[in-house]
Amino acid sequence: MTQLSGHNFIGGERSAEGQTRWNSVNACTGEDLPFQFHEATEKEVNAAAEAAADAYPAFRALSSIRRAEFLDAIASELEELGDDFLDVVTSETALPRPRIVGERVRTASQLRLFATVLRRGDFYGARIDLALPDRQPLPRPDIRQYKIGVGPVAVFGASNFPLAFSTAGGDTAAALAAGCPVVFKAHRGHMATSEYVATAVIKAAEKTSMPKGVFNMIYGSSVGAQLVKHPAIQAVGFTGSLAGGRALCDMAAARPQPIPVFAEMSSINPVIILPAALASNGDKIAADLAASVAMGAGQFCTNPGMVLGMAGDDFTAFAKKLGQAICSQPSQTMLSSGGLKSYQGGLDRLQRHSGVTHLAGEPGVGNSANAQLFQADAALLLDNDALLQEEVFGPCTVMVEANGVPQLKALLHALRGQLTATLIAEAQDQPLLEALTPILETKVGRILVNGYPTGVEVCDAMVHGGPYPATSDARGTSVGTLSIERFLRPVCYQNYPESLLPDALKNSNPLKIIRLVNGELSDRPTH
Amino acid sequence: MTQLSGHNFIGGERSAEGQTRWNSVNACTGEDLPFQFHEATEKEVNAAAEAAADAYPAFRALSSIRRAEFLDAIASELEELGDDFLDVVTSETALPRPRIVGERVRTASQLRLFATVLRRGDFYGARIDLALPDRQPLPRPDIRQYKIGVGPVAVFGASNFPLAFSTAGGDTAAALAAGCPVVFKAHRGHMATSEYVATAVIKAAEKTSMPKGVFNMIYGSSVGAQLVKHPAIQAVGFTGSLAGGRALCDMAAARPQPIPVFAEMSSINPVIILPAALASNGDKIAADLAASVAMGAGQFCTNPGMVLGMAGDDFTAFAKKLGQAICSQPSQTMLSSGGLKSYQGGLDRLQRHSGVTHLAGEPGVGNSANAQLFQADAALLLDNDALLQEEVFGPCTVMVEANGVPQLKALLHALRGQLTATLIAEAQDQPLLEALTPILETKVGRILVNGYPTGVEVCDAMVHGGPYPATSDARGTSVGTLSIERFLRPVCYQNYPESLLPDALKNSNPLKIIRLVNGELSDRPTH
Repeated sequence: MTQLSGHNFIGGERSAEGQTRWNSVNACTGEDLPFQFHEATEKEVNAAAEAAADAYPAFRALSSIRRAEFLDAIASELEELGDDFLDVVTSETALPRPRIVGERVRTASQLRLFATVLRRGDFYGARIDLALPDRQPLPRPDIRQYKIGVGPVAVFGASNFPLAFSTAGGDTAAALAAGCPVVFKAHRGHMATSEYVATAVIKAAEKTSMPKGVFNMIYGSSVGAQLVKHPAIQAVGFTGSLAGGRALCDMAAARPQPIPVFAEMSSINPVIILPAALASNGDKIAADLAASVAMGAGQFCTNPGMVLGMAGDDFTAFAKKLGQAICSQPSQTMLSSGGLKSYQGGLDRLQRHSGVTHLAGEPGVGNSANAQLFQADAALLLDNDALLQEEVFGPCTVMVEANGVPQLKALLHALRGQLTATLIAEAQDQPLLEALTPILETKVGRILVNGYPTGVEVCDAMVHGGPYPATSDARGTSVGTLSIERFLRPVCYQNYPESLLPDALKNSNPLKIIRLVNGELSDRPTH
Repeated sequence: MTQLSGHNFIGGERSAEGQTRWNSVNACTGEDLPFQFHEATEKEVNAAAEAAADAYPAFRALSSIRRAEFLDAIASELEELGDDFLDVVTSETALPRPRIVGERVRTASQLRLFATVLRRGDFYGARIDLALPDRQPLPRPDIRQYKIGVGPVAVFGASNFPLAFSTAGGDTAAALAAGCPVVFKAHRGHMATSEYVATAVIKAAEKTSMPKGVFNMIYGSSVGAQLVKHPAIQAVGFTGSLAGGRALCDMAAARPQPIPVFAEMSSINPVIILPAALASNGDKIAADLAASVAMGAGQFCTNPGMVLGMAGDDFTAFAKKLGQAICSQPSQTMLSSGGLKSYQGGLDRLQRHSGVTHLAGEPGVGNSANAQLFQADAALLLDNDALLQEEVFGPCTVMVEANGVPQLKALLHALRGQLTATLIAEAQDQPLLEALTPILETKVGRILVNGYPTGVEVCDAMVHGGPYPATSDARGTSVGTLSIERFLRPVCYQNYPESLLPDALKNSNPLKIIRLVNGELSDRPTH
């Protein structure tokens, strides 16, 4: 069994200079677990940022193949963590063991997918415009461009995916793949889990001879703000609440040197059930949708928090079926007592609003949460009432009826930015599907047909992003290989000697990557 | 001759509801030209932003081929502007006629290059992960991604390139190429020029049947802040001063929905002359460098404002030669009396500083500026004195001696972010070139060897960007085709019916573009 020290990870060493300690908590019982974590002092936060800055020149100078080896090694180390690790994760998060086992597979696969991207080399975005010495009126010099990591990245993990969106999760993997050392702020909800994972990352770094400081982890509460303000930090990845994400964005924007923040924050993920699907398939949709709402106690960024449909007998009947399906979902323990309190607060706000009716769901007992179904007047959305736009983080969804296609369109237009929108449709719904698609394209990062948004595939084509407040920058994604782009910037070489060009830009194309050469994509050497 | 009305361009109409008017000014004489421009009222600014928002759905739905036709048509309309246009530009800017003629060629070529990008289709960033229905433990759905324009873009042109970085310049071309309608804030320094160009853009829009509101232009002073705060605006392109750019960034970050700002602001573009080059080629370097410093009265973003070298007889002799070459540059009229005043202010600050010596340059007479050469103590840079880091916008450069390679490296480390750095080197300088390159890569957007930074080629591989304060976001470029990326965001389609997918993502690949399919770049159909 791994011995947990509760010390910060700084520059390849462990450090515990501070007096403030935080206890890890059993999510089911609310009792302290036997692990204490030392909040990083101001000096330690600075040291972590500086360790990352010190590691940056050596780390970014490594070939991408070497960085791929590091990512693969992290995946292997994660897989080697034993039953004691799984016990700790389940204790800290109340997530069922099979879910943790599956999330570890996902996290390791994610790291290995980035390793594939590094070996493939298209992330370099290599572009070459060869010299045109005879061009009139002026010759064109030789100009070449590729992308390098922006520098040290601060990563803030999420509570709801203690592995896949945390210590060695997507943001960390993307930043390391880009050649950016990471300072990770451990989430207070799973500090022991984070120590296990950070230890695995450091082992992998040592085995693959990465520079010290390539990965650092700090514990604490106010340390996040200090980290984001540190001049060495060049970008921020965050998954969490709108309030938390926005606060980091504001801090980053107010720095002497503003830096980009990629915060994935708040989304209600509307599911729109089109009439033919509703008429022909209501029972199955109700069952599947209720399962998606209740999955993981609703603690998913892509949890479907709103169900839209056309008013009428079919939708009324559907509401009844969905209510039954919601009631048949088991009670679940949430990630933390804070999360449960926040969920109950969200339910209370819905309950108290005169435009909202509670349709189904038993009250939670003790520290467990039950799924809930509400119905809200369309006017609430149309009048821009903030209530319906705010994510209730838990197993809850709100039905909204439109009195026709124009109102349905108006409702979708009224929505704020979202991670996802889902259309449930049959063949006869195709004209409506076509009419709604352009509206949804401007509102979300991902549109699904006949699926549920709670599964987020890790692949090249995934977008886990979207317009504000889903994220702070709709041009990014925090899942999938495009997420590496957030931490890269282009550098251009003009008239540079071949021997000093990076391999990605050499005439001989030693990496055998596809490059844009004089406007054509090609893997051929340029001489 | 085109009749100038001085009215704002809003939604394809002309509008002049306000009472405040601004006169265009002859840059040589300081006298009013016979053109008056109506400052947009608050209502008109809102109308311009809303016209752009109204145009967005139709404009982004056009095929990229249709947008390419629009860009090509703008280029043609620009080329058809007559002598009266050239007269007006030279009057407003004091830039010599051949420069204006050349800048028009550059501006038209830039528009046509974006049309090429639209026809090539790689800007779509199309990615397809085909369904894996038999995958265990869960099937993979079909997932596809491409990029769409972010929405209406506000563009702020620069004074120093009244065509190439203004009304129909790089930011406008990139935004329109991305499918984003534009609201352009006319620069006060060339309002009549802007009216000519905007008229050409509108003609092109009409000829190619673009939606009304695809391009809008407003005049005035405080209208810029109002524009950036308008909820319809989704991104900002800016070229200008650090103070102006930072103010826009702060406004954009403080919006209820923060939006990205790509501000190209301040750069001193160090030129590092390595010892062997200095020893063997000092005369020619002095002549070429002086010409680069004085080009366009030094009013270039990439003007070389600092010259670094190793202390010693060679550098001392070089300083003398460079001083002579600087003195032999002709006096030039600057773009405006404000620009001249700002240049003189910059010179005064250098003159007054005890660590700075004036080496060469005659005082300017009347409204003309002369090139100036200074020398500053290395300590100024090393001690982080702000003076040397601030761009003096005009024909001025400051020499700084290093007492050895370690100090040269320390000087480069001390520099803030830059658009460019230039190394002048001979074969024997290669080891030093190699040692300095990694430092410069983290400081600049473009590194040149044996060239001068004042020429900025418009091509695929160019980066006209760099770390703060050169720009507000080092991940962007404002010249070259990569600049389109600033105004695009990814959208993902999961399990979408083929008939409703955008052409870029259809199985048949009707656009015949290269796509990343299951991790491999290919132009093959996926079925």
